[in-house]
Amino acid sequence: MIHKLISNIKKTKAPIVVGLDPMLSYIPEHIKQKAFAEFGETLEGAAEAIWQFNKEIVDCTWDLIPAVKPQIAMYEQFGIEGLKVYKKTIDYCQEKGLVVIGDIKRGDIGSTSAAYATGHLGKVQVGSKSYAAFNEDFATVNPYLGSDGVKPFIDVCKEEKKGLFILVKTSNPSSGEFQDQLVDGRPLYELVGEKVAEWGETCMGDTYSYVGAVVGATYPEMGRVLRRIMPKTYILVPGYGAQGGQGKDLVHFFNEDGLGAIVNSSRGIIAAYKQEKYAAYGPEHFAEASRAAVEDMVKDINGALENR
Amino acid sequence: MIHKLISNIKKTKAPIVVGLDPMLSYIPEHIKQKAFAEFGETLEGAAEAIWQFNKEIVDCTWDLIPAVKPQIAMYEQFGIEGLKVYKKTIDYCQEKGLVVIGDIKRGDIGSTSAAYATGHLGKVQVGSKSYAAFNEDFATVNPYLGSDGVKPFIDVCKEEKKGLFILVKTSNPSSGEFQDQLVDGRPLYELVGEKVAEWGETCMGDTYSYVGAVVGATYPEMGRVLRRIMPKTYILVPGYGAQGGQGKDLVHFFNEDGLGAIVNSSRGIIAAYKQEKYAAYGPEHFAEASRAAVEDMVKDINGALENR
Repeated sequence: MIHKLISNIKKTKAPIVVGLDPMLSYIPEHIKQKAFAEFGETLEGAAEAIWQFNKEIVDCTWDLIPAVKPQIAMYEQFGIEGLKVYKKTIDYCQEKGLVVIGDIKRGDIGSTSAAYATGHLGKVQVGSKSYAAFNEDFATVNPYLGSDGVKPFIDVCKEEKKGLFILVKTSNPSSGEFQDQLVDGRPLYELVGEKVAEWGETCMGDTYSYVGAVVGATYPEMGRVLRRIMPKTYILVPGYGAQGGQGKDLVHFFNEDGLGAIVNSSRGIIAAYKQEKYAAYGPEHFAEASRAAVEDMVKDINGALENR
Repeated sequence: MIHKLISNIKKTKAPIVVGLDPMLSYIPEHIKQKAFAEFGETLEGAAEAIWQFNKEIVDCTWDLIPAVKPQIAMYEQFGIEGLKVYKKTIDYCQEKGLVVIGDIKRGDIGSTSAAYATGHLGKVQVGSKSYAAFNEDFATVNPYLGSDGVKPFIDVCKEEKKGLFILVKTSNPSSGEFQDQLVDGRPLYELVGEKVAEWGETCMGDTYSYVGAVVGATYPEMGRVLRRIMPKTYILVPGYGAQGGQGKDLVHFFNEDGLGAIVNSSRGIIAAYKQEKYAAYGPEHFAEASRAAVEDMVKDINGALENR
């Protein structure tokens, strides 16, 4: 799947991923009203509104982007109905040829991690049959439990040719509380980065590994160091735009080949119509505002890469 | 909810929790065959088998135990159908008066953590209505992202009187890879433990906090230290039985008041009929084997506490 991700990035010339993290407050009133008219102010109604919102954004941006990253929490909060739309969104994006990164941040031990890996990236056995329950192409994984927690995911990736992005240094303000603690004079995230590189060696594509890392755009200097520690690791970079990261902060996350990183924006794209810059589109044309925001983001990042 | 947990523990004199982590391989053939006959070898069939298995175990043990801990991964691997049974199991256990600890190990940042907290412990707003999607009483949380990731869970706990168990030192063999790394001469898990105690201060019940910790039974000496660092923190202790922990290893996890810890066993209880010790029950009477295993576990732990 790392091959498909890289091939999609080369084809679109866009090292970006659109975070499909729909909050109800992002969804224009006309979509919500239609969904509530049909299903009531219910979990089903909320899920329908999210689905129509996602679909319109995907329809309006798919040809410009290599991948999407739905954040499962935004669906899970609406329970079963929300999770049905999470799955529907995955299927729809894959039909459009997009790579789907499930932002699930799961992580547990042994057979439990294996169950998560099976449910999201693999196939679960039921008697003589097997089924892919969620079927994302990549999943994000939390490393706090160590190799026992990560290896079951890697096993499934090897079998299914899927991929991972493992949290190394997250984009949030308090990420340093534990991740930056010095161990023998070096921050913990570097140790985690070394482990990610080591795990990735067992699971290589042509030039990049199936095992990637998450490093926040909000910490560009750490990105520079981690880029060196994990040369063959694809880095998923959250925190662009709404969280404060900009194109010029991102150049260190990329390798000399112009590859090696994929930058996520969620709110900045899917709720673009709420920004002053794109307000002229209005709520009715929210998806066109998203398309314009994608074009601007690609320009910003590619411009910074050309000028480095 | 910490009040209800403690009151249930006092009433049953059983500081234990039964891990409802059903793997299909644990479920007796007669249950699977019945479910597959009705729904086929499908995700729905698997979910029905899990439900019947859980129900029989709960019916046969609920009067002896204060709480259950369903591991969501074991349901999530069967997709939507599995998650429906996760929810059905929560509802059924709550009807029986049991406290339900959702072993979800979620953790993200800001609005994303808030969405998980809302979906599992709180209520999500849809227009003018609000709904509790999963409605566990407690949830387990991963601390790797720091305070930003944990605080949204604490906010929901304050509002809903629910509780958390935050991963501090996990029971698996490789948990030390990151958790044991020395920071200024002290292992990282101690720093995490201090943070848990600090977060817990903001959210106190009578003597114990709504914010608990997870510390593995497999590391009794670390349990002793963490008990001192987090005196008002309830400790959820996995790793008893199948993972190697025994009653005598567990005494340091408890306070002088005989409270402060709750010990989980999953496979050792729900698949007891597969052990030589309980084999005489046979697969037909698997739930009675679970009841006997609960009684033995309570005896083991209470015996160790009396003799300390």
